[in-house]
Amino acid sequence: MNNFADNLISQIKEKKSIICIGLDPRLPSKEEKNSIPQFLIDETKDNNEAIFEFNKRIIDATCEFTPIYKPNIAFYEQYYALSALKDTINYIKKNDSLSILDAKRGDIGSTSKAYARDLFENYKADAITINSYFGTDGVEPFLSYKNKGFFTQVKNSNPSSAEFQDLFSVRLEDIKNDQISVKIEDLKDKSVILERNFVQMARLVKEWGRKLIGSNGYSSFGAVVGATFPEQMKSIRKILDKCFLLIPGYGAQGATAQDIINGINEDGLGAIVNSSRGIIFAYQTKPYSVKYPANDFEKAASQAASDMRNELNEALK
Amino acid sequence: MNNFADNLISQIKEKKSIICIGLDPRLPSKEEKNSIPQFLIDETKDNNEAIFEFNKRIIDATCEFTPIYKPNIAFYEQYYALSALKDTINYIKKNDSLSILDAKRGDIGSTSKAYARDLFENYKADAITINSYFGTDGVEPFLSYKNKGFFTQVKNSNPSSAEFQDLFSVRLEDIKNDQISVKIEDLKDKSVILERNFVQMARLVKEWGRKLIGSNGYSSFGAVVGATFPEQMKSIRKILDKCFLLIPGYGAQGATAQDIINGINEDGLGAIVNSSRGIIFAYQTKPYSVKYPANDFEKAASQAASDMRNELNEALK
Repeated sequence: MNNFADNLISQIKEKKSIICIGLDPRLPSKEEKNSIPQFLIDETKDNNEAIFEFNKRIIDATCEFTPIYKPNIAFYEQYYALSALKDTINYIKKNDSLSILDAKRGDIGSTSKAYARDLFENYKADAITINSYFGTDGVEPFLSYKNKGFFTQVKNSNPSSAEFQDLFSVRLEDIKNDQISVKIEDLKDKSVILERNFVQMARLVKEWGRKLIGSNGYSSFGAVVGATFPEQMKSIRKILDKCFLLIPGYGAQGATAQDIINGINEDGLGAIVNSSRGIIFAYQTKPYSVKYPANDFEKAASQAASDMRNELNEALK
Repeated sequence: MNNFADNLISQIKEKKSIICIGLDPRLPSKEEKNSIPQFLIDETKDNNEAIFEFNKRIIDATCEFTPIYKPNIAFYEQYYALSALKDTINYIKKNDSLSILDAKRGDIGSTSKAYARDLFENYKADAITINSYFGTDGVEPFLSYKNKGFFTQVKNSNPSSAEFQDLFSVRLEDIKNDQISVKIEDLKDKSVILERNFVQMARLVKEWGRKLIGSNGYSSFGAVVGATFPEQMKSIRKILDKCFLLIPGYGAQGATAQDIINGINEDGLGAIVNSSRGIIFAYQTKPYSVKYPANDFEKAASQAASDMRNELNEALK
């Protein structure tokens, strides 16, 4: 199969799992509560090797529980460890799993083309996250990679996503002004429907995804919707009925299995739920930290991934 | 001086120029109309060296005409030429000019922190472009670098930026729904003001910039506003009266000196106007291509930069 959504569905069914594991490495430092264990830093020669070795062991220990991994490029860039990122995506592929390269790239068309080349040709990711503030001509260069998957920012998991994403908005044609005052007289027998900005973004996603529909009826163009906003997820699910939502915010950001129910379709498909720190640094987090020392970090991750899969499957019943 | 806006103003005054030169390298290929000349590729050992050598010669030939350069990271990433980017920013500094690293990064807080570290600590850029769709908590980690400059996407130069950025929107508190229908009865003696999304974004930029005001009264938090939308620029200028607009779209994208007048304050400050291809690949563009062969690409760039500076200064009179 060549369509990303088809591949994802086949992985989800095979592994009986809708989890996504975020591979966001952090090196030990005073500022970081969670990090790659010190012994692994001592055993390796540089950041690239330490990070790849950590990811490799995490992937070996968790790939039976997850259809897909999501490395966030920011964490590799800050350590200037891009070869570790390349190696990681390659290793995910070898282990018969899929990858989303979380990069949130986007620009005008000619620049988006350069970003698309980088993410798909240098890193060979199966899917990417993009930023669609630029509209169709900034999105199209990505979509020319027809067998890839795309997730754009719709409603993010952080509290202040509301500041812009929750504004009520409306498309009004034939108005030149940048500000209008709606008064009773202006409306006369008319009424306008205002929808929140993230709903408007979801409608654009629906359009962009029409050409990417796989044999299962699902589109490969999906949306990022924070688990921390279950009500908003319901609105988005209605519009984007047949695409995948990438749901961050589970675990470390506080959302629970119940919070994501609104994001899942009746067929049990339509969403993948991401956890990063909660899985990869489980050895530093209760209850796993009690049982697993740093030396067994991958066992802690394996247990946390298995538990998360089961929790979500339980909630879906 | 430590404040970015102050440094920029001092550069603008010294060089009597409000231009910004985009350093977006392109290697020769069938797809690219404009590119680094083949002879330079032949003389150098790899992409990193070819790109840095090209940029170096461009910077040497143009730095008397420009206060600031803007490398777009996408073009370096696609060639996996990040050391050329580092070297370029370092070389800009050595030549007593400023740099904006155009990266359009943005995410939830913990990830924005990683991006900020990368852009400011690995690349040591003086300013960056960011994506503010995430709201305040996604922006704040960048702002903790207090002496740096920031430009966020407000109204982009590409045609389909209208799809989302031109929606009319309003902040309505205490409403739980994601969709409302405004009818005459609902409004009763009330009226609501709807403003385009890019105007709303400009208002957020104004807030974020309050803590970054330099001794000249200008803030170091600015906005990207396409030269291709002169009317919209007027609305944005009114709100962001004392910050810098980064104006792309000049030259290759079709905008002229007249189009950017609305973006400049009475004091002649408040904007920098970017041209990328129009300057660095001037040797392939009329009228410069007639006079300058590929071997003299830097002379063509120097002439084009000088001409652009003069055109803008003329229009500002």
